[in-house]
Amino acid sequence: MLKPFVVSVRMVIQDNVGNCLLVRRSATNTSNVGKWEFPGGKVDPNEEFYEALLREIKEETGLTVTVEHVAGVTESETSAVRIATLIFRGIIEWGEVRLSSEHDAYVWAPPKELSAYDLVAHIKSFVEENSDHKQLRQSCKE
Amino acid sequence: MLKPFVVSVRMVIQDNVGNCLLVRRSATNTSNVGKWEFPGGKVDPNEEFYEALLREIKEETGLTVTVEHVAGVTESETSAVRIATLIFRGIIEWGEVRLSSEHDAYVWAPPKELSAYDLVAHIKSFVEENSDHKQLRQSCKE
Repeated sequence: MLKPFVVSVRMVIQDNVGNCLLVRRSATNTSNVGKWEFPGGKVDPNEEFYEALLREIKEETGLTVTVEHVAGVTESETSAVRIATLIFRGIIEWGEVRLSSEHDAYVWAPPKELSAYDLVAHIKSFVEENSDHKQLRQSCKE
Repeated sequence: MLKPFVVSVRMVIQDNVGNCLLVRRSATNTSNVGKWEFPGGKVDPNEEFYEALLREIKEETGLTVTVEHVAGVTESETSAVRIATLIFRGIIEWGEVRLSSEHDAYVWAPPKELSAYDLVAHIKSFVEENSDHKQLRQSCKE
């Protein structure tokens, strides 16, 4: 079957000591309930990648962020679609974390501890590929 | 209209002094003839991103390469589809440049001179966004 592509945009948001924001999928979701992910979501029709990213981050975390650069690309699929997940690194402009109903917990995790969380598959493969954390800041001193 | 996504994978291949391989679209193409681009192309159904990338690079340049990391993401569209272009940085494992009929010229350009070429739109926006060349090696000494 020819599966159409969906593009998903997600962000690694790091605080001022280099910890990364992970959010946990709540029971309102139809899949991956209880798993951790970077905030973000699907690019809507007629919406640019960065526009989608800033909208999703605002909706899911309450934070206003700016995009620094792309940090990774992963692929996954469901029975109906192929998903290209574009993972960007970003920084917080202002705001404090306030979750939407899509998530029920959050944590600021040091890069080295990301793999200890029960991550959704497309985030897990990014974290594994970046186990040297080259694309992430290790601390605010770098 | 709801345009489906196409995912295209391209590679910035740098030689041992940091110059980047650009290839020029030949008259066999139906669009962008005479414009310069990084080698690469569309991900086929049931083909993984890296698999598509290595296949396209081999077909278009004769080179065997390895992927280092993603360097950029750009978006563009035609009247029928939206195109997500994923640009990876790679290194040559072995081989010498041998073009396919899709291209009629190639050049090894220093990162700072990339913008002087008549580039296809999705490459141009990457080069402009990376005018500080953070994602590219400036020389083999780095």
